[in-house]
This record gives sequence, structure tokens and C-alpha cells, in this order.
Amino acid sequence: MALQRVSVPKGMRDFSPSEMAKRDFIFSTIRSVFSLYGYQPLETPAMEHLSTLLGKYGDEGDKLLFRVLNSGDFLKGVSPEEVNSENRDALARAICDRGLRYDLTVPFARYVSQRWNELPRPFKRFQIQPVWRADRPQKGRYREFYQCDIDVVGSDSMLCEMELVQVVEEVFRRLGVRVELRFNNRKILAALAELLGHPELLVPMTVAIDKLEKVGIDGVREELRGAGFSAESVERLAGIVAIGGENEERIAQLRQHLTHNELGQKGVAEAEQLLSYVREAGVGIPVILDLSLARGLNYYTGTIFEVKSLDVPIGSVCGGGRYDDLTGIFGLKGVSGVGISFGADRIYDVMQELELFPANIETSADVLVLNMGESAQSIAFRLATHLRNFGIRTLLYPDAAKMKRQMDYANKQQIPWVLILGESELQSSSVSVRNMTTGEQTQQPISNCAQWLKDEIGKKTI
Amino acid sequence: MALQRVSVPKGMRDFSPSEMAKRDFIFSTIRSVFSLYGYQPLETPAMEHLSTLLGKYGDEGDKLLFRVLNSGDFLKGVSPEEVNSENRDALARAICDRGLRYDLTVPFARYVSQRWNELPRPFKRFQIQPVWRADRPQKGRYREFYQCDIDVVGSDSMLCEMELVQVVEEVFRRLGVRVELRFNNRKILAALAELLGHPELLVPMTVAIDKLEKVGIDGVREELRGAGFSAESVERLAGIVAIGGENEERIAQLRQHLTHNELGQKGVAEAEQLLSYVREAGVGIPVILDLSLARGLNYYTGTIFEVKSLDVPIGSVCGGGRYDDLTGIFGLKGVSGVGISFGADRIYDVMQELELFPANIETSADVLVLNMGESAQSIAFRLATHLRNFGIRTLLYPDAAKMKRQMDYANKQQIPWVLILGESELQSSSVSVRNMTTGEQTQQPISNCAQWLKDEIGKKTI
Repeated sequence: MALQRVSVPKGMRDFSPSEMAKRDFIFSTIRSVFSLYGYQPLETPAMEHLSTLLGKYGDEGDKLLFRVLNSGDFLKGVSPEEVNSENRDALARAICDRGLRYDLTVPFARYVSQRWNELPRPFKRFQIQPVWRADRPQKGRYREFYQCDIDVVGSDSMLCEMELVQVVEEVFRRLGVRVELRFNNRKILAALAELLGHPELLVPMTVAIDKLEKVGIDGVREELRGAGFSAESVERLAGIVAIGGENEERIAQLRQHLTHNELGQKGVAEAEQLLSYVREAGVGIPVILDLSLARGLNYYTGTIFEVKSLDVPIGSVCGGGRYDDLTGIFGLKGVSGVGISFGADRIYDVMQELELFPANIETSADVLVLNMGESAQSIAFRLATHLRNFGIRTLLYPDAAKMKRQMDYANKQQIPWVLILGESELQSSSVSVRNMTTGEQTQQPISNCAQWLKDEIGKKTI
Repeated sequence: MALQRVSVPKGMRDFSPSEMAKRDFIFSTIRSVFSLYGYQPLETPAMEHLSTLLGKYGDEGDKLLFRVLNSGDFLKGVSPEEVNSENRDALARAICDRGLRYDLTVPFARYVSQRWNELPRPFKRFQIQPVWRADRPQKGRYREFYQCDIDVVGSDSMLCEMELVQVVEEVFRRLGVRVELRFNNRKILAALAELLGHPELLVPMTVAIDKLEKVGIDGVREELRGAGFSAESVERLAGIVAIGGENEERIAQLRQHLTHNELGQKGVAEAEQLLSYVREAGVGIPVILDLSLARGLNYYTGTIFEVKSLDVPIGSVCGGGRYDDLTGIFGLKGVSGVGISFGADRIYDVMQELELFPANIETSADVLVLNMGESAQSIAFRLATHLRNFGIRTLLYPDAAKMKRQMDYANKQQIPWVLILGESELQSSSVSVRNMTTGEQTQQPISNCAQWLKDEIGKKTI
């Protein structure tokens, strides 16, 4: 057979052991905090019916779905006209019944709709799985990436939002990443669209505001005028979006703008309530009402969040919001929920840049037992097992290679301890223990070696 | 929009929180043991180039690959003849460049071929990820399932095989599953095919032998005759496959049969070596040379393994073997490796049937703090945070619902402790702590409550 092209598809990645060690550090930190707050794990399949996925992410999203070709005779039942038509979309739907999940929210909504009667209410779940998008790959944007989501459904209490803020604080505290959380409320945004006389332009308005950071206020002005807002409306909106000062001042000013708008008053009250809860709970990270925060996804109906690193300008590392009818399309009406998603890739980049990963996280093992050939074999086997019983990650070099080669291996793999069972050691039932960091070498009785190493390793990790 | 069909695709599964808790128990046990033996984590993308996957799993395997439709105008450049031809396979290749991984071994071989110069040698990796096969779904067979693989490449030492036996022993010891490990050697099987005068029939021979358990010895006889072996050869082979007794007797008899066959002698020597290592290392599970063990995959060239539950007849829960040229097709010649794969789904079924999962593994939280309305809110918030700082998984009920409803929630969710902050409790800076298992209720000073609960929870898990 011919030699094969050896690469991964565009936009996809292998994660090497050293990358995995760091990623696992992030995932397990996130998972522990989720569990501490009583979120329960859920997993859904990589594939969903395309009917479950289509129409949930806008036209752009539909185009970015990966579709899975039907098995067997995939053209069976497809008419020659369909096959030869220019309408690729219809043909794609005819030959692909399934697609890869695009996010974790829609599969979660599908799951909740299907199981609602069995689920506790509120139902709090976390989900950490990869998603796939046929996006144009670029720096920091991949076609396969993990999302780490938590959602609470079945309660419209603002306590849920407050708890999400606490989760954000605790996750980033444990990771050592300094962040601020900005929030807004879709009800306020909807009220602003009403106030400006264009409730029907809510979506283009949020899309425009969402670009503030990227294109500046003049860019937003231009986009709003393009969307159909009058020059006067644009100025009024620009004024509101620019409201500054402390949260309390912002709320006071906003309340004045929205005096006669019921939805707007409700949104302002919700924002105020969240701030009051956050204060009562003693949240330590900055929590800022940001009227320019819009977020793209259309299903949000209340609070929306975004979390940014204070030290690395990389966009948001976490975001989410409240939705009042996510499950409606699947036949389950009136179930409110709120959730956020942590972006593992960006968190990784921030931690990498700030060198926040713990030292030695990448070491493959604590100890390498050298292979000194047949004479020491039986003792080496049992010693390795004995060390592992003490929880010490132990490698036994599989070949009786030259000592230098084995030592090089330990160095390259950053294994901090090497054990040597030479003839003199065997005669005295001892083992030579070499500290690869300092180069020091001592002899230990075999019987005591595991405890001694465990203590030494313990010292290092404190 | 019309209501959507609410289901997962055939052969795919959601994993509910209670299933996830049990699956995580299995995965984290397996992962800890892998780490203890110095295997390092690796992940590869869900999608590979189809050229990487095709031709690696036989014709049957090729048919079972899930193919991903190319994005955008997927028919661009495909001729009308190709589109309208009866050759679906060619069309499928023209419109799909990528497929979903079918196992973890081929992506691993691709990775190793690509990175060989950077990798430590030996390179020991573990990989726990889902794989996808368009198999006909049936009981215990799914289209998406997790594999848990370890491999060592870059050493042909039989110590690697021995270590895999130790890993098997330790994983199942920790899970509480009693197992036996059967092994054979492909060199022995190849020698037998030579001995019977049909070296070219090795593959059909192993396929036939592999079915022994399913179809019985007469079924195997029939299949061997059908494959082209003479009646005499079939009888000779049946005699060898049926060799019984202790491992030593089997080896002695086998050695006689294969006296004049170099490859066969090598295979027997390898088997003997493995048994001697296993003895020296003090392995406690039964390790049995089983001449009828063949395993389907063609890339094995040395030792092959299979592990079975002693208490639940469910087929193998783990299997693998040594391959001498897995990376050859990707341009990297002469790299020997050995690996095994744990079948999480079958292990789950065995543990479920034997009720081996720890009690309380499914509880969502340790404590529910009742929501008594606004007066207690601020204290409840801080108490919950305080408990979580002690590592206690704490839920705060989000709505000020009736007490009965909140208690029902705790019961349904099997949360063992409920905390009540009523008016009298607030006045005395205390909290009522209700043990949901016994119904007992005591008062604790708020300041001491976290430590008290931590101790109580600790008692339970001992």
C-alpha cells in the first residue's frame, strides 16, 4: 500500500502529553468547582439528528454544521433531479440525517425536553465535551474544541445567576487567573430598541453593540444607521451605552431613560437584584453592569454575562445568560434556565502566557527504576509494584540498555528520581536513590525506600 | 417553527448524571492506574483524513466508518458521471475527505509516525476517548462508545507485556471485578498455519479459531475445512487447540508440535518468558496460555491478550497485543509496540450486574441549604460558600418554595443533609441540621457547622 499523508485535518489538533497535563488541570479544576456547587455531570452523543441542530444557530451556524453521510446506499430514494440540482443544501439534507454537535446547549435542551418528567427541578447539570464547527481555522479558532457548560433549568430565581457568578469567581481563583465579570440584561436591550421606536431591530441592534470593542463607537454608530435607526436614535443609544460610573449610578441613569417602559424597568430591577445578591454573598471579583454587552445568541431573554482576563487581552474566557424558552422548540414550554460556558482553549492560552500552570505538572512519573538486567529483575518488579502501592508513579525501564541511555531518558522525561539496583545494592538489600535535580545519590534499605520517597515527593509538592 | 423530533440517533446514548457518576468511577480508576505506571495522556481529534482510516480495518471496517460531508459546495469538481454512477463508494470518497475515528490505535499510530523524532523512547501513552462505528446497533453494541487504551512503543521487551498484565490486575482489583487473563502468541498461530502447509491461510485460520467459544469445536472444524484446510490438518489443529493442563504442560506439548519451526519456537519462548515474568512479579490473577485465542485484528504479530470477568459471561472486558509494524503504513518502519484496550461499557455492565459501584456515588450534593426567604438569605449565601470551602458539595435551593417541596427535592436527589435557617436559628446564630437518612435533627452553632458536617460525611465514606 502507498504511504499515507500523515497529518490531522485542518483546524483539528492532537494534544500531546504535556498539553494534556495542562488541559486536565483546567478541566479537573472546573469539574471540582461544578461538583462543589451541586451540578451533576451529563454527556450527550457527538451526533444529533440534523433536525435537532438546524435552525438553532442562525443561517451562518447552519452552514458551519458538520454533516455525517448516511451509511450504506446514501443515494437510495434520492431522485436524479435532486442529485443534479444546483441546490446543494437540499441534497445535503437528503444524504445526511445526522450532524456533529455545534454546542452543548442545544443537545442539553433536547435532553431536558425528552426527560423533563424524570428530572429534579431545578435540574443543575454540567457538561464538558468537544464541539465541532466548520469555521475557517485561524489563530485561537479551531474546528474541534471543548466547551465546559453549566446550566440550571426549572427556576427563574436570580439566585441562580448569583451562583454562576460565584462559580466563575471560584474557578478562576483556583486557576490563579484574575478576571472581571461584566453583565447586562436582554430585557434592557429590548427596551432600548422599543425606546428608539424599532423593537423589530433588536437583533441587528445587539449585533451592532456587540462589536463596540472591535470597531469602536463610531463603527457601532455606522452599523446602527445601516440597520435602519435614525441619526437621533443612534445618538441616544450611543449616549446610553456610554453611561459610566459605579454600578449604582449606571442603574440610576438607566432607570430614568426607561421610566415608561415596563420591560426595561423589569430588566433594571433584575440587574439591581443580581448586584445586591452578589454583594450579600461577598463575591470578590469585579462585577460590572456593562450596557454595551450584547452577546450574539438569540435565545437569551434576561441576564447575560461575559468574563474577561484582567491581564491578557484575549476576548471573553467565559460567557452565558438566561433563556426563557430554549426547550420550546422541542415541545417543552415555559422552562426558564440560565447557564454559562467556560472556554478551555482561551483559559489555556491565558494561563500559558502568565505561566500559571503548576511546576512539574508535566512529569510523566515520579520514579524511574533502572533496568540492570536479569539478576535484579525479580526484585525490580516487586519494588516497582511496592512503590505504586504507595501511590508513587513508577516507570520500569523495559530494556537492559546502557545506564547512560536510561539516565538520559529520565532527564528528558523530567523524572525527578532514579532507582538503581546494582550488584552491591542487591547484596545489602538496598537501593541507590538518585535525585535527578540535585545529582545527589544516597542508599536506602529496600524495605524503607517507598516511604522515604513518598515523604520526599510530598515535600516537593507542598 | 414546527416541533422537532426529540430523540438521539440510533445506537447513540445520553448518559444521565447517575450513569455518568458510575462511568466516571470506572474512567478515573483506569486513569489513576495508567498514571501510576507512567503512561501519559494523549488525545487525537474526532476526525481524521479518510486516507488515514481506510484500509486499516478490513473491508468490513471500511463500510463501518462514519464519513463527514465536505463543507460548502461538496459536489464541486465531481463529474456528473461520478455523481450518477452506481459506484457509491467512489462518490462517497469524492464528497467526504474526513471520517470519524474508528478506534484509538490507528490515530495513535498516525501520531507516533508524525512525532517520532520528538517522542521519548519507549513512549507510553494512554488515551480515553469515544470512537464511532456504523455497526448495526444491538444489546451491548453502540455506534458511539469509549475506548481506554494504553500502548508502549519503541521497545520489544517482554517486560512491556508483563506490565500490561499488572495494569490489568490493578485496574480490576480496584474496581472489585474478578478476572482472568488469557493470552496467546501470533507467532505460534502463524507457525501452526505453516505446519499445516497453509501459511497463506493464517488469517482465515485465526478467524475460524476465534469463533471457538461461539460455535464450538465442530463449528471451527467446518469453517477450517471451508477455508481450504485438509481434513487431516483440521484434526491436527483441533488437537493442538484443545491442549489442556497447566501452562507448563501446554508449553511442553506445543514445543513438541513445533520442534522444527523457527517462528513457532520463538513464539513459545515468548510465551514462556511472559509467564516467567508474571511469576517473578507476583501477579495474582490467573494468567492462562490459551491456544484457541486468536483475536481478529490483523496487525498483531506477537503476544495477544484477552481478559474476561469470572462472574459475568459477557465476552472480553479488555484485550490487545503486540504489533511490529503498525506505523509502517505511515512511513515509520520497524517500531514495535504493545497495547491493550479496556471496554468501559462491558466493565460497566459487569459492575452493574454484580452491584460493585460504591454506595452514594450518585448523590448530587452532600448538603441542601433550604431557602427560607429574604430574611435568612445573606447568611445562607455565606454559609453555603463556607461549606464549599470545606469541600462540602452544597446546594442552595434557588426558590423560597414551601418547605415540603424543598425537603422532597432533597429526598429525591438523595442529598443526605439538609440545613434550615429559620427565625429561631437566626436569633441564636445556629442552624438546624437534619440527617435525611435517620430523620434526626440537631442544632449546631453556625460557626462550627462546616467542621461538624465534614466529620459526619467523613464517617460515612470510611
